[in-house]
Order: sequence, then structure tokens, then C-alpha cells
Amino acid sequence: MASKIQPVKGTREFYPEQMFLRNFIYEKVRAASQAFGYQEWDAPFIEPIDLYAAKSGEELVKKQSFTFQDRGGDFVTLRPELTPSLTRMIAAKQGELTFPLRWWSFGPFWRYEQPQKGRSREFFQWNIDMLGVDSPLADAELIAVAAAFLRSVGLNPLLASIYVNNRRLMESEFDALGIIPEKRLEVSNLVDRRSKMEPAKWDAYALELGLTQKQVDGLKNILSNFELWKKSDELTRLFAALEALGVKEYVKFNPNIMRGLLYYTGTVFEAYETSGSLKRAILGGGRYDNLLADVGGPPLPAVGFAMGDVVIGIILQEYGLLPEFIPTPAAVLVTLFDITMWIKSFELAVQLRNAGLNVMVYPEPVKLQKQFKFADRMKMKIALTVGPDEAANDQVAVKNLVNGEQVTVKREAVVEFIRKILARV
Amino acid sequence: MASKIQPVKGTREFYPEQMFLRNFIYEKVRAASQAFGYQEWDAPFIEPIDLYAAKSGEELVKKQSFTFQDRGGDFVTLRPELTPSLTRMIAAKQGELTFPLRWWSFGPFWRYEQPQKGRSREFFQWNIDMLGVDSPLADAELIAVAAAFLRSVGLNPLLASIYVNNRRLMESEFDALGIIPEKRLEVSNLVDRRSKMEPAKWDAYALELGLTQKQVDGLKNILSNFELWKKSDELTRLFAALEALGVKEYVKFNPNIMRGLLYYTGTVFEAYETSGSLKRAILGGGRYDNLLADVGGPPLPAVGFAMGDVVIGIILQEYGLLPEFIPTPAAVLVTLFDITMWIKSFELAVQLRNAGLNVMVYPEPVKLQKQFKFADRMKMKIALTVGPDEAANDQVAVKNLVNGEQVTVKREAVVEFIRKILARV
Repeated sequence: MASKIQPVKGTREFYPEQMFLRNFIYEKVRAASQAFGYQEWDAPFIEPIDLYAAKSGEELVKKQSFTFQDRGGDFVTLRPELTPSLTRMIAAKQGELTFPLRWWSFGPFWRYEQPQKGRSREFFQWNIDMLGVDSPLADAELIAVAAAFLRSVGLNPLLASIYVNNRRLMESEFDALGIIPEKRLEVSNLVDRRSKMEPAKWDAYALELGLTQKQVDGLKNILSNFELWKKSDELTRLFAALEALGVKEYVKFNPNIMRGLLYYTGTVFEAYETSGSLKRAILGGGRYDNLLADVGGPPLPAVGFAMGDVVIGIILQEYGLLPEFIPTPAAVLVTLFDITMWIKSFELAVQLRNAGLNVMVYPEPVKLQKQFKFADRMKMKIALTVGPDEAANDQVAVKNLVNGEQVTVKREAVVEFIRKILARV
Repeated sequence: MASKIQPVKGTREFYPEQMFLRNFIYEKVRAASQAFGYQEWDAPFIEPIDLYAAKSGEELVKKQSFTFQDRGGDFVTLRPELTPSLTRMIAAKQGELTFPLRWWSFGPFWRYEQPQKGRSREFFQWNIDMLGVDSPLADAELIAVAAAFLRSVGLNPLLASIYVNNRRLMESEFDALGIIPEKRLEVSNLVDRRSKMEPAKWDAYALELGLTQKQVDGLKNILSNFELWKKSDELTRLFAALEALGVKEYVKFNPNIMRGLLYYTGTVFEAYETSGSLKRAILGGGRYDNLLADVGGPPLPAVGFAMGDVVIGIILQEYGLLPEFIPTPAAVLVTLFDITMWIKSFELAVQLRNAGLNVMVYPEPVKLQKQFKFADRMKMKIALTVGPDEAANDQVAVKNLVNGEQVTVKREAVVEFIRKILARV
């Protein structure tokens, strides 16, 4: 029986209550993006597998993608990330686009990973990027957008932090330790794992990778040095800009933030909930100046970040930061007194909708008590009834479902009367 | 080179201008749905292939679906339609949901069909359904939602019509012609093709299907009889309800509307642009009282419709019904006078954003002329500059980009001043 078929593992069903959460996140994402003038865009949800081959996201495609051959024989992937599509679209219209380009997007992505808390196989992701500018001011703006979002959902600087580092700074520190360029990817991953491993195991792992004890000690010194940013002109300018943008309280320098992907070239950052109960980053990103040229696109400096909907959704629920779920967008129910009166009810609903109100009509002449109970369960605020007496006198019975008061109002005054009640509740 | 890789055939890239159209449709869909109190929901985008097997949409899955085996060996389909997911989700929570249920959704779907005008392989679709009520009043409400949408996008009754028929009425007419139940599906398809075939070919095709000449003549009589609805109590009540809902001018009885899918049980309807330049329906739906029970769900009467974004998008563009595309959500640009002044520019932008304005800062100290030109190309309304003189006097230079006027304003008065300009342009 079709009704007994389970959803695909790692996908989510959005009943109205879950949809309300998804929409809440989307609205806050949109507001933060638009406050800084970013334009909304989107790419196809299925893409040719070759699109991902040229990029360091290869692991994504080889191990974690939903990939298949379509009926025409083409190899197609459910997009695991957005940047390769961004690259293609910008390269295709480079001459027509107005730079600096500020684009944001919110849509579905898929990764074939083990579902667990904070991770699903089908998820939504906010992507936001500025292209065409190589400056710490641009980096600061992206971090300010992230902070504006966190603030807008009620995550103040005590609850969430944005940790910042700089790849160029780390490269020069690695140079000073004599870590050869061929080891950089492994060392980056090593740094990324530090918070997830026991110290002794991490040390052993570092030696296994071929680092000397002196290099390991030096690396640990670097990773514990929270003043290291003072060596970096870029970070110094970045923090000054973050102060001017009023978001410095959200931001902390942290030399342990590396970001897995190799393509970052300067500033990198990740936001975390500060209690640490959830080890996953809320969002992460950075500067990637070479990526577009590397994949055959125009040389174009870029900075951006991405945020999945799963981790932030869990945090908002755990902190009780979601507004109350209101099941229906209609605050007003027009009841059906009995089958002889349905035309009056329909006409009343039309009058109210024409005035811009969202209005539901109960679609069957069941007992009025049942209709009122329905309105209560849907958390509606007002129920209107037109019975034969009201109809004869061109009136409407208005019941305030919040305080139970019921009055009879002239039909032509009902819109104003309802607006007043809704303004109060 | 990744940048030269073409998108998958039949998918679309949403540059900000195309995204603006998609969002315009989504906003109008949302407004029409919410005006009648419908709740937004969504299903997973990938579903088990078995979900579609029990339903008459089987052709969709066998011939037109994107179907594949995932890394875990499960057979997965990019959803070609929403109703099977609706069925599963309602069956799973039947006891907790409040009926009558009014749900709407807008999201991506995939069908492996030949892309052509009005049809893409990846598209967005509005789905809206009322479950739990078997009444022409409910059918009328769904048609009124469709009409409210058409009206909201500027398609008045001269430009678009909703054609209505009733399956029960047609069944009884087929009975009267002696068309046996086994032939009903073929005859339904025959009726659906009538507007797309030459009359002589259609007659020949009807005879090929095994109808007698008398049955073909009788069928043609039925299909030309636009008064036939008077025989149907359901249609009579439906039209009365549509009149009460103020949308009768959009609706015409048309016995040629059958809807391909077998699962419809009563009212069926399709909306078309009246000029007929595009032969595809804008939207279509009807009553399907047995579907949920048929697939093992709870017995539950239902009525709903679906609308793809492609046909309506073409029509809105062809009729010039789209509002002007404004590239950026920020009407205000804060320029960067020179590199010494950047902090002042950033702080001004923060002040304006805190007042609720969407504001872009030019992120590099290029020539002011270039920054103003950027603002023009982005169709921004106002450019603000803080140079050394303005900074010394706590002022801001405000340039109205619509009429070219430039004045200097005290910093504390700038928000009010901008609001006044924006209210006028």
C-alpha cells in the first residue's frame, strides 16, 4: 500500500509546522541578504556530473553525491553544493553582469552521508557571495551579513560566535615551521580535526602524517595563539571593518578554523553555537580568489558562505527561539449556519477577502459547535456567523475566539470591526 | 573546463531576472492560497519509486521519471507529482490532523519529457488541495482560488478562462451511448485530444477505437452541448457557488474537459489563456474522492489542482504583465569616497540598516563616477556620500538618482530624508 511506503532515508516531510520553521529560516535569510543589497538567484537542482570534477569538491561527487544516468544516457547529479553552478553561470554572462556582484540563494541540496543529528541527505542551504572585489572590507561585509542573520533569529553574541582565521596567515606560519606545500592539505585536515579528537591521539596522528615533534609542538603553539591575527594586515583591517559594521562582538579570531576545502585563499570563518552542545558549524565560508579561474572561468576574486537549514533549525528549537506556530494564515473563520445560508457566508467571505483579509469558510453545514472547535484548533481569532436573523437585518454575528465575546455588527461595519479586534490580539 | 559545461537539458538557470519572475509567481500563489486560509507544506523532493506504482500516474514513473538507484541500492525518483506524497503524509498522521484540511505547496518537480515551449524537465508547481469534504462548495472554493490567482496577476476574464466539467455527468452520458466501462479510459483520452486533432482524423480515430458511428455522432453531440451542465445537480450547485464567490465570469462549462488521469470522480477543470496562442492549460484539477482509499490511505474525499510555473510564466511575459525588474533589493547606495573614509561609510550604512532600510555599500574606493554608474545600472534610487567635508560637519551628501538632485543633510536627519524620497519615487 502506497500509504505505508516510507520516505527515502535522510529526507524530511514538511507538515505545516515544519514548513513554518523552514519558512521562518528562509524569511530571516532573505531579510539579512536583502538588507545588504544582495540579489536572489538559483541554479538548476540537477547538474552534469562533470561540473563538479574540476573542483576540490571532488570527494563530494565521488563519495557523497546522488548521481545517476538519465533516460538519455547523460550522467546527472543532484547538486551537492552551489559554487560550481555559480561559476558556470557567471562565466556564461560575464560581459552582461554588473560587478561587484552580490548574489544569494536558498534551495535544496543532496549529499549521500549517514543521517544523524544536524545532518540529513536532503537539506536546504543558504548561499551568499560577493564577486569582483578583493578586499577585507568585502570579507567583513559577508561576516556582517552572517551576524545580522544570527541577531535576527535571536542568537545574540552570548549564544553564537563567528570564528575567523586567514589562510595566508596560516600558510606563512606553516612555512615558518618548514611544513612543505605537499603536506598542506593533510595539515589543514589535521587542524580541522583538533576539536574532535583527544589531545594525545591528535598528537600521534600528527606524527603519523610525517610531521616532526618540533613541527607538532610549533603547530600547537600556533593553534593556541589567539593573538596571532596581529601579524596579519588583512585580519587587522578585517577586524577594524567588523567594528565599523557593529558586529565585532560576534567575531573571535581562532587559528583552528581552516575549512576543509582547499580553494580558500584568505579570510575563512565559521559560526558556532557557543554552548558547544552541537559540534557542527552553523555556517561557514571565506575568500576564494582563484576558484573561478581554476575551473576555466574568468579570474574573479570572491568571498561567500553557506548555511544549511538543519543545524540552525535544531538550535532555534533548542533555544526556544521560534515564534508560535499559527496553523492557518486565516485569522477569520466564516461559519456555515446551515445549508440554506451558504450563499450569505460565501458572500461575506468575498467581502472580507476583497478588503485584504485572509478568510476561511467552513465548507460544510455541520453543527456550529464543531465549526467553532475547528477554529480553536486552528488558533483562529474570530468566527463570523450569518444566520437567518442576521441575514434579515443585514448583520453578522462576530465571535472573538480569544476572549469569547460575541456581538452583532452591521454588515458594512464588519471589516473595520474585525481589523480592530485583530490589531488587539 | 567546468565553465563550459552546459546545464542539463530541460533545466533552467535563474539569474536574478528569472528569479524575480519565479518569485513573482510564488508570491501571487502564496497570496491566493492564504486568502482562503490554506496552510503551506512540502514533501521530500526525492521519493521511493514504489510510491508511484499504485496510482494511475504510473505512466509518469515508467516513461517520464528521473529514476535511479542510490548508493545504498534503493530505487529513488525525482518526484514527478505531489499527490502520492500527500497521500502518504496524510495517512501517517490522520489522527493528529484537523479536517477539513487545506494545504498548498510550491516546489520543484521533474519529468523526462521532450522540452518545448511551455514545458521543461525541471519545473516548479503549485499544488493546492482541500481534503475531508465532499461538496460542490469545496470544488467551487478551489476554482475561486484559481480565479483569485489569475486576477492577481492581471489575467482578467477576457484573457483567461476556467473550463469546468463533471466526470459523473460524462459517465452517465457515456452510459446512455452504450459505451462500455472498459472503453472509458480510451474515450476520455479521445475527448482530451479533440482540440488537438483535425475533425476528420478524430472521427477516424474514434471508429478505430471500436466506437460505432452512432456512438461517435452521439459523442460529438455531447461535446458540442454547452447546456449539458443543466442535467447535473452538482454542476448546478457548483455554478451557484461560483456566483456567490464572485468568480463566475471566469468560469465556463465545457464538456471537452476530461483530464487525463482516471482518478477524478466529479468536478474537473482547466484554465486556459483565451487567445489560444498557447495550447497548454495554465492549471488543472478536480475532485478525486477515491484516490486515498485506493492507495491504502484513509477514505477521504478531496479536491485540488496544480499549476506549473512555465506556462504561466510565458503568458505573463507575452502579455507584459510582469512588474519592472529591479535588480537589487537595496534602493540606497553608500559610496566609498576614498580609502580614508571607509569607516564613515560603513557606519552610515549600519545606521540606515538599523532603521530598516536595505543598503548597499560600494566595497572599493574606485572613482565616484564609477560608483554612481553602478547605482544607475542597478536601478538604485539614492546614492549617499561622506567625504571629508561632510564627515567634519556630521553630514551626508544625498543624491537623488531619479532626478539628479543633490543636497547635503545632517547625519541625524538622513533616515527621514531618504524615506521621503523613497516614498515619492
